[in-house]
Amino acid sequence: MKIGMFQTPFLRPERTPRQVFQWAIQQAVHADKIGFSEYWIGEHATLNWEGIPSPELVIAAAALQTQQIKFGPLAHLLPYHHPATLAIQTAWLSQILEGRYMLGVANGAYPTDAALRGIKDMSQNHAMMLEAIDIMERVWKGEPFEFEGKFWNAGFPEATGGKQLRDVRPWGGDIHMAMTGLSSPSPSIAFAGTHGYIPASVYAGNDFLRSHFATYREKMEEAGRPSDRSMHRVVRDVIVADTDEEARKLAIDGGIAHAWNEYIKPTYTRFGVLKGLLHDPSFDPDKVDGEYLAEHVWIVGSVETVKQKLNHWMDELGGPFGTLLVYSHDYIDNPEPWERSMELLVKEVAPHVGVSQEAAVA
Amino acid sequence: MKIGMFQTPFLRPERTPRQVFQWAIQQAVHADKIGFSEYWIGEHATLNWEGIPSPELVIAAAALQTQQIKFGPLAHLLPYHHPATLAIQTAWLSQILEGRYMLGVANGAYPTDAALRGIKDMSQNHAMMLEAIDIMERVWKGEPFEFEGKFWNAGFPEATGGKQLRDVRPWGGDIHMAMTGLSSPSPSIAFAGTHGYIPASVYAGNDFLRSHFATYREKMEEAGRPSDRSMHRVVRDVIVADTDEEARKLAIDGGIAHAWNEYIKPTYTRFGVLKGLLHDPSFDPDKVDGEYLAEHVWIVGSVETVKQKLNHWMDELGGPFGTLLVYSHDYIDNPEPWERSMELLVKEVAPHVGVSQEAAVA
Repeated sequence: MKIGMFQTPFLRPERTPRQVFQWAIQQAVHADKIGFSEYWIGEHATLNWEGIPSPELVIAAAALQTQQIKFGPLAHLLPYHHPATLAIQTAWLSQILEGRYMLGVANGAYPTDAALRGIKDMSQNHAMMLEAIDIMERVWKGEPFEFEGKFWNAGFPEATGGKQLRDVRPWGGDIHMAMTGLSSPSPSIAFAGTHGYIPASVYAGNDFLRSHFATYREKMEEAGRPSDRSMHRVVRDVIVADTDEEARKLAIDGGIAHAWNEYIKPTYTRFGVLKGLLHDPSFDPDKVDGEYLAEHVWIVGSVETVKQKLNHWMDELGGPFGTLLVYSHDYIDNPEPWERSMELLVKEVAPHVGVSQEAAVA
Repeated sequence: MKIGMFQTPFLRPERTPRQVFQWAIQQAVHADKIGFSEYWIGEHATLNWEGIPSPELVIAAAALQTQQIKFGPLAHLLPYHHPATLAIQTAWLSQILEGRYMLGVANGAYPTDAALRGIKDMSQNHAMMLEAIDIMERVWKGEPFEFEGKFWNAGFPEATGGKQLRDVRPWGGDIHMAMTGLSSPSPSIAFAGTHGYIPASVYAGNDFLRSHFATYREKMEEAGRPSDRSMHRVVRDVIVADTDEEARKLAIDGGIAHAWNEYIKPTYTRFGVLKGLLHDPSFDPDKVDGEYLAEHVWIVGSVETVKQKLNHWMDELGGPFGTLLVYSHDYIDNPEPWERSMELLVKEVAPHVGVSQEAAVA
């Protein structure tokens, strides 16, 4: 199983933009060095806990400091950019990274991000996303066209007067797109399957996840594409340390518990997905605290414990998926144990996860 | 006199995006280390000689590797971005750089850049720029508003439900804007004066430059602002080496001559500004070559020679201006003599330029 990171970010709102930016780069450089395969970054203009408005700036800053890791915004919110300008910028980044670039796209779910762009009625956001994708894919071809859309105009010019235009095509001619899913059933995961995009499921319980796997397989097959679970990314919290006790301490006294208490739990409650994470549906959601989460929601423990828990999870899912993405959390004040957790996960745990089940889903 | 750099860029079209990106960062880091005060970067999506479509990516990549230099796009082409999204991104960069950020803005002059955004009739670009500036300045306040414009809608949301929004304001509450001027009379320089923006004159001969100085002073005074020339930036080619001969060789056999022959001279001819650069208006423009340019247009020579030439130029202008911006050129294959030229200019030449004339224009 491959290991990647999702830098949402989840950083205390009192962190300065410079701290957020530095931390996101530091995490990327570390993840690259220890063997994480990918690093995704969220985009939100107005959210105080998810304080990266421009993931492309983090990717650019980390590009020349990393060797093998792939980067991607997850996601650029397409209604909020001119699609031709975004096509040029993403293609340039994919060239700079010599292909180590993927592109998550989304409608935009938060009303405050929409209001910034004067959008009060978000019912058009999906249509905007579709038109934006259409424009971006045309621009990436680097061939003349003219397009008058419902939301934007775009085109690509003819070279005239003997002047050559810049080659605007992305590395390899195209960019692999990705989309996240949270709810069940997930229209985003269905869209990803229909279009061959990378599906990234935000973990909200096994039932939701199995539904995402099934939706993706069904839509991929409808579109005539072979599908196994190796494309699937699942985002979940994992913390590893030398002992179970140290891992629990790193979780319960650390940035992850603070983020869940202050931000993630209220957000999941609002989106109606908290219940799927409870081990017993009758458990009182108000009693969900760090202790509970470390036991039932996050995967926390020593190398041996986390191996067992992950393999047990793979059994429950009927086999492994391609890449486990762990959230980055706010360990800015003492990064070492957190960076070590990442290293234990990718070097000591991951090689032993899903090995026995792989044959079952191949 | 302060020294800065303008990374247009002027790089051979066969350079890869990764080479362009690396060079732009390498130049910024060097410029910072040796004492350049600022570093400006162009934005063009479609031009093959000016191959940076997203200056913000270079600025982000250089941000944590530099200590004192200020950065700025010169210019973000405002019609081609959603202004609210650009406001958020620029403000975030100004925070990351803790104020080492300025923002050049422009209408966009190249039809191929416009065609990419489906704009065939560029007569609206100036109105688009004005609306974009209005939106950006409102967003930077971080206070609720709603705006329905001719070209874009935008707003800033109320914080509701007890949730705090991210503080989107730039460092110090505002961003100092800049605008370039090339022609004479220059409406851009007039606009800069009226609005208190930094004026950056692309050098096209002393007559043009004197007209820019006069326009700027007049518009600043009309707007009730004290004005001296210390705000003024002038962009010009300067090459310094240990001897006159070495400097001439670095120029005539180097990236600067190649860029002028292949790209800059044809471009200036098309914009009608080449004549202003000739020492004698009757000189045949077809005969303008590296030798001619090194003698009459660029400032080339040893430390002593360049000191004399720059002081002579200051005399002709009736006194110095604030910051001399030198173009960056394609010395990727052998950067050392070029980087040394930059260092000689800022350390050995600049402290001795304009000193005697400063009293005259204070």
